[in-house]
Amino acid sequence: MGKEITSREQDYSQWYNDIILKSGLADYSAVRGCMVIKPYGYALWENMRDVLDKMFKETGHVNAYFPLFVPKSLFEAEEKNAEGFAKECAVVTHYRLKSDPERPGKLMVDPEAKLEEELVVRPTSEAIIWNTYKGWIQSYRDLPLLINQWANVVRWEMRTRLFLRTAEFLWQEGHTAHATKDEALAEAEQMLRVYASFAEDWMAMPVVKGIKSPNERFAGAEETYCIEALMQDGKALQAGTSHFLGQNFAKAFDVKFSDKQNKLDYVWATSWGVSTRLIGALVMAHSDDDGLVLPPKLAPIQVVIVPIFKGEEQKALIDEKVKGIVKSLKAAGIKVKYDDNENSRPGWKFAEYEMKGVPVRIAIGARDLENNVVEVARRDTKEKSSYSLDGLPEAVIALLDEIQQNIYAKANAYRAEHITPADTWEEFNELLDKKAGFIAAHWDGTGETEEKIKELSKATIRCIPINNQLEEGKCILTGNPSTQRVLFARAY
Amino acid sequence: MGKEITSREQDYSQWYNDIILKSGLADYSAVRGCMVIKPYGYALWENMRDVLDKMFKETGHVNAYFPLFVPKSLFEAEEKNAEGFAKECAVVTHYRLKSDPERPGKLMVDPEAKLEEELVVRPTSEAIIWNTYKGWIQSYRDLPLLINQWANVVRWEMRTRLFLRTAEFLWQEGHTAHATKDEALAEAEQMLRVYASFAEDWMAMPVVKGIKSPNERFAGAEETYCIEALMQDGKALQAGTSHFLGQNFAKAFDVKFSDKQNKLDYVWATSWGVSTRLIGALVMAHSDDDGLVLPPKLAPIQVVIVPIFKGEEQKALIDEKVKGIVKSLKAAGIKVKYDDNENSRPGWKFAEYEMKGVPVRIAIGARDLENNVVEVARRDTKEKSSYSLDGLPEAVIALLDEIQQNIYAKANAYRAEHITPADTWEEFNELLDKKAGFIAAHWDGTGETEEKIKELSKATIRCIPINNQLEEGKCILTGNPSTQRVLFARAY
Repeated sequence: MGKEITSREQDYSQWYNDIILKSGLADYSAVRGCMVIKPYGYALWENMRDVLDKMFKETGHVNAYFPLFVPKSLFEAEEKNAEGFAKECAVVTHYRLKSDPERPGKLMVDPEAKLEEELVVRPTSEAIIWNTYKGWIQSYRDLPLLINQWANVVRWEMRTRLFLRTAEFLWQEGHTAHATKDEALAEAEQMLRVYASFAEDWMAMPVVKGIKSPNERFAGAEETYCIEALMQDGKALQAGTSHFLGQNFAKAFDVKFSDKQNKLDYVWATSWGVSTRLIGALVMAHSDDDGLVLPPKLAPIQVVIVPIFKGEEQKALIDEKVKGIVKSLKAAGIKVKYDDNENSRPGWKFAEYEMKGVPVRIAIGARDLENNVVEVARRDTKEKSSYSLDGLPEAVIALLDEIQQNIYAKANAYRAEHITPADTWEEFNELLDKKAGFIAAHWDGTGETEEKIKELSKATIRCIPINNQLEEGKCILTGNPSTQRVLFARAY
Repeated sequence: MGKEITSREQDYSQWYNDIILKSGLADYSAVRGCMVIKPYGYALWENMRDVLDKMFKETGHVNAYFPLFVPKSLFEAEEKNAEGFAKECAVVTHYRLKSDPERPGKLMVDPEAKLEEELVVRPTSEAIIWNTYKGWIQSYRDLPLLINQWANVVRWEMRTRLFLRTAEFLWQEGHTAHATKDEALAEAEQMLRVYASFAEDWMAMPVVKGIKSPNERFAGAEETYCIEALMQDGKALQAGTSHFLGQNFAKAFDVKFSDKQNKLDYVWATSWGVSTRLIGALVMAHSDDDGLVLPPKLAPIQVVIVPIFKGEEQKALIDEKVKGIVKSLKAAGIKVKYDDNENSRPGWKFAEYEMKGVPVRIAIGARDLENNVVEVARRDTKEKSSYSLDGLPEAVIALLDEIQQNIYAKANAYRAEHITPADTWEEFNELLDKKAGFIAAHWDGTGETEEKIKELSKATIRCIPINNQLEEGKCILTGNPSTQRVLFARAY
C-alpha cells in the first residue's frame, strides 16, 4: 500500500514516528525542535481542547490571555522557578532586522535595536501572571481567581520527539489564587481529578493519580500532583500535573489580600497544565502495527464510508443511498466522512483509514444495496460484520461506545499486568530490563537515594499513588526502613 | 459609582482606553506594548473566534498549527515580504539564561548559547508555511490546500493602543494554495465576503468591501482586498484583509505542482486574516459615554438579572422565582447571569453592567413578583419596560434581535452620513478637519500622488470599493484625469 510502517517489535521508536508522519498528525519543520501540527492532528487537538475547556468551565474557571514574553527581571523574582526553567529558554534580545550592507538581499540583526531588558519566550507563565495578579487582588472579594490560558510555550530541549518533547508546544495552564491553603489544596486536587477523568473517559487511557517526590516536583511548588500513564513499551508517561504552589509566588510578587477581618495575608496559589504531549500519549497507548487507533469520543472522523462499485451506474446508486446514510448518521451526532474519491481504490482507502485510526469503516457495494446491508469493520479488533441499514445510526452509536470501552479495557489490562512489586535490588533491575512497566518498590524517602536509583537504573519515581496503602518495608537500594511502596518506571 | 469614564467629546482616545480598562476587557502588562486580555475580553474573543471558525470550516477550510519561529533565512527568501515586515520584529538570538556570577540571584544571557541562525518571532507566517507546503504539494491532487491557523503574532510597534495596535496580538491567518489563478482569486474574494458578513451580521458593524491601492498592499501580494469600517470619531479602521498572492510565494519557496497533463507549474496562493483588533473596532463602533455597547450575538452575557429586595424573606422569594427564569432563558439558548452578590447595591450593578455592555438587564423586585412582571432595560437605547413573566424567553429573544438590528442601523446611518464627496483640494481638507469620515474623491492613480496626499493631509486611500461606479473626473490634488472616486480617510 506504500505506507507501511515499522512494527513495534522491530523498532518501537521508529514505529511511533512512522505513525505520526504517515497518519498525517504532524510533520517536521524548518525550525529545530519545532513541529508542524497537520490538519488531522490539529482536529484531534481541537476535540481534546474543547472537552477540557468545557470541564474547566464547569468547574468555575474562565479563560484569559497573558503576554508571550516574560521580562528577565520577573523571572528572577521567583528564584526557584527561574532555576527550574531558566536554563533552556528562547531569549529575545533585539527588536529589529535590517538589510545587511555587505550581503545584498540578506538580513542581519540591527545592533542598534538591542533591548534594554531581554525578554524570555514563556516556558510557563507563573511569573507574568502573578505579576499581573498583584494589580487584580486587593481583598477577599477578589478571590478565588480561577483563570486558565490556552497558549504556546517554548522550552529549548536538546533532544526532541514529535508531540512528546518539542521546543514549542501548545498547552493550557490554569493559574488560580485563593484565600486559604485548604481551598488551594482542594483546587489542585480537583484539577487532578479532572485530568484523570479526561484521560480515562475520553482518551480511554488509564492513569495513576499520584504525588511527585520532592525531587520531581515543579520548581516553586509545595506539592505536585500528577497523572501517570503506561505506554505499550512499558515506559511511563507523565500526562498532566497540578501544583499546589503555597504562598511562594504571592511572596515573590508581593500579592496580598485583606480578609474579612481586614487582616493582610499572602494569597495561596495553584497551577496545572496538560499539553499536546497528550497526543503522543494517545498514539502510544492504543495504536498497533497498522497505524493509529483512536478512541471514538475524540476521533476527528468516527465513521468513514467507502463505496465499492463497478461503473458509473453502480456508483450513482450507491451515492444516492449513502446520501441518506450520511444524513442519518450526522443527525445522530456521528462524525462521518464519505470518501468517494475516484483516484484511489477501496483497498488503498481501507489501509489509509486504518492508518488514520478511524474507529469504524463502512463499505457499501451494489450487492449490499440489494440486501439492505453494509459491511462494518471496527478498527480496534479488525472484525467485520454485516449490518442492516435499518436502525444503522443506533447500531453505529452502540458500536462506537463498545470500541471506546474495549480500547480502555485493553489498555487497562495491560497496565494491570505491568504494575509489579519488587523486593530486592536485583529483582527491581531484572523487572526493569525484562518486563518494564511500573515497579512498586520501597524507598527510604530521601532525595539522595532517589538520585542514586535513577543514576544506576534510569528509572525514576513516577509518583506516590494517592491513597497509597501503607506497608512497612525496606528501601530497595539502601535497606533503610520505608512505610510505603512507590511507583518506579523508566519514562518518556 | 466610582467607575466614571471620560466622555467621547472630552477626549475620544481616553474614552476608548477607559472603556477597555473599566469594562474589564483588557489590562496593561509588564511587557512593553503587550496587553493582558482579561476574562471578559477573552470570552468576547472566544465568541468571535468560534463564529469565524465555523464560517471557515463551512467554506472548506481546516485548521493546523505552524511554528512560532521563522529562521532568518526563510524571511530572506521572499524579498518583498521581508522588506515589508522585517524592520520591527522580535528576534531570538540565544537559547539559554544562566546565573550571573557577578550578581547573586540574577540571571544573564549565556553568551555560549548563541544560535547559529537567529529566529524571528512570526509577524505573519507566509514564509514558514510556504516552506512547509513545498513538502506537501506535488500534484494537482494535493490542491487546493485550504488551511487556517489561530495563533499569536508579534510586530514590534513603536506606539501601541489596547487591541488596536499591540506588539503581540491574537489572530487567524488563512494560507491557501491553488492550481489556477482564477481559483485563488475566487478564494481571496470569498474570504473577503466571509469577513464582511461576519462584521455586519455578527458585529453589527457596516463595512466597505474594497481593494487596496498598490501603495497600501500587503508586501508580497498582487491584490489586497479589505473591509474598512468607520469609527464614531470619523476615523476609518481596516478590519480585515484578504490577499491574492499570485505565484510570488510559490516562486520564492519553489512550490510547483504537476497538473493533469503532467506539466509543472508554480502554485497560486492567498492569505487572509483578522485579529483581536476587531475587538477595538467593536468597542469604537457602538459604545457610548456609559461604557461598552455589545451586539447581542457576540456578547458574553446577553441578559443580567438583578434582584431588588429588602430583607432575607424577599430575597428568598426572588431567588426561587429567578431560578425558574434563568432555567427558561438558558433553555432558549440565552446567555444569562443572575447577579445576587450581596456585597453591592442594585444601582452599582446597573452601572457595572452598563459599563460591560450587557444588552439586556432584568430587574426583579418583590412587588414585581406579585404582578407577575419584571423590569427590562435595554443597553442600546436605555429604555425600560415592564415585561410579563409569561412568555419571557420569547420576548427576550425578540428584544435581543431588535437590539442587534438597532445598533447595526445606527452605525449604518452614521456611516451613510459620513461618506462625503469632495471635488476640490480645499473641500477635501475642510471635510477632513470638520466632518471626517470617508471622503469620496478622484485620484490620478499614481503612488506619488497618494504619498503626497498622505503627507499633506494625513489621509490615506482606504480602498477602491468593489463594484465602484466609474465616473470621469479630475484628481483632487494634481487635476490629472481619473476614472473613479476612491475612499480617503484618516485611519487607525
